[in-house]
Amino acid sequence: MLYFIGLGLGDAKDITVKGLEIVKKRDLIFLESYTSILGGCSHQELESFYGKEIIVSDRECVESGAERIIESAGEKNVAFLVVGDPFGATTHQDLFMRAMEKSVKVEVIHNTSIINAIASCGLWLYRFGEIISIPFWDGEWRPTSFFDRIVDNFERGLHTLCLLDIKVKEKSVENIIKNRNIYEPPRFMSVNVAAQQLLDIVQSRDSKDITSQTQCIAAVRVGTPSQRFLTCTLEQMKEVDMGGPLHSLVVIGKMNAVEEESLKCFCETS
Amino acid sequence: MLYFIGLGLGDAKDITVKGLEIVKKRDLIFLESYTSILGGCSHQELESFYGKEIIVSDRECVESGAERIIESAGEKNVAFLVVGDPFGATTHQDLFMRAMEKSVKVEVIHNTSIINAIASCGLWLYRFGEIISIPFWDGEWRPTSFFDRIVDNFERGLHTLCLLDIKVKEKSVENIIKNRNIYEPPRFMSVNVAAQQLLDIVQSRDSKDITSQTQCIAAVRVGTPSQRFLTCTLEQMKEVDMGGPLHSLVVIGKMNAVEEESLKCFCETS
Repeated sequence: MLYFIGLGLGDAKDITVKGLEIVKKRDLIFLESYTSILGGCSHQELESFYGKEIIVSDRECVESGAERIIESAGEKNVAFLVVGDPFGATTHQDLFMRAMEKSVKVEVIHNTSIINAIASCGLWLYRFGEIISIPFWDGEWRPTSFFDRIVDNFERGLHTLCLLDIKVKEKSVENIIKNRNIYEPPRFMSVNVAAQQLLDIVQSRDSKDITSQTQCIAAVRVGTPSQRFLTCTLEQMKEVDMGGPLHSLVVIGKMNAVEEESLKCFCETS
Repeated sequence: MLYFIGLGLGDAKDITVKGLEIVKKRDLIFLESYTSILGGCSHQELESFYGKEIIVSDRECVESGAERIIESAGEKNVAFLVVGDPFGATTHQDLFMRAMEKSVKVEVIHNTSIINAIASCGLWLYRFGEIISIPFWDGEWRPTSFFDRIVDNFERGLHTLCLLDIKVKEKSVENIIKNRNIYEPPRFMSVNVAAQQLLDIVQSRDSKDITSQTQCIAAVRVGTPSQRFLTCTLEQMKEVDMGGPLHSLVVIGKMNAVEEESLKCFCETS
């Protein structure tokens, strides 16, 4: 049996009562560690809260090593823990599907994710369009297709939730070439970097929809005690200081009167 | 102090550990009862799980009677329980804001909602557009503006999550006129009724985008043990038997190859 259990966004106690009961009964516990991080606690704190050992699983373990997880689940009771909701990242739907194909019983324990918790910024969930991800640019590799989707949303008056890249356990090109298992320190995109990349696109395209004056929201450490929301223009967003990860960015479309009022209440201004 | 606590979608144990600890310490507990229902348990079962009395709060209590909740929270520790995530319904953002204006301390304990749990149907959350609500038509009152937004999503290849109307503690026109506090039995829109209303619009507009052959998903009792997902055409959706509430409907946009595979695994077919 393979349980996919969402941990929510903050600390150990954001797991559901049902999720915790299941974890406590499992033989093997994997914690997915590369699509997100739990804002308020380390995996050691999770271990002490559960009274169980946890196997921290990077991309390689989950994607290339999926067979190991699935095989274990054929024989034992396995919990696969995911920050946020288990299906926030599509890679977990894939793992679920592969387990089903091997006739392993599966169950999902949902939890909150940034996708609904973002409503704490004051905007209405019903006024968001397609969610996008902004990847770190790297040298000449400067993809911009996500910008078109922000514009699509914006033209319809919809807000865009931009999830910002995280790089965990990545190798430098040199270490890949030399086949050395030396990893770079983890990197989490800040709203500053996201704003700078967006402004570069605005400038290069001479965009008239999204401009340096477009109003945005920095949504930072959402669901943790140090959560902050700040609204300002894209230009100002380059310079704000919002502290440690995780950061998300909202590009505001057209607000209704209630949302405008809400924003004053739910968000700081720069 | 006023805590907004999400209950998730299934039963009493879908509350988070943090949420449960808070509930157990509160003086007064309100349960919002008109924007959703907890699939797997009654409010009596919640009371017995918490060891606390619950005040079940209808629209009148939460909207017109907000002052009472806020005043209580000025003097006592109050928990306001919401099925799903506290901010899934915009009315709760409003209550939060009004409490803040009265200098009442507020805190939100997030949980899952249909907005992220819908990924259990196999589609990717990143491929959904604007969320819409389909209201019950009533006599000559047959609004259709939600259809334009489905078409907007569809034209961009995006899926649409359609939340279906629920009517709880509503009065008939006769009882409103006679000022009698007699309420109609609760009504929950099924995917059958939603499909019929959509088909009526398709026909009246001679729509070429969304047609009777458009592929949809019935997402039923999501997050509960009796959860079901079924995919079929809009025409077939009129006739499926998916059992009791709550029902949601997904109008599928353009799937990628992985989503097509997923759907075969995650959804029944009719």
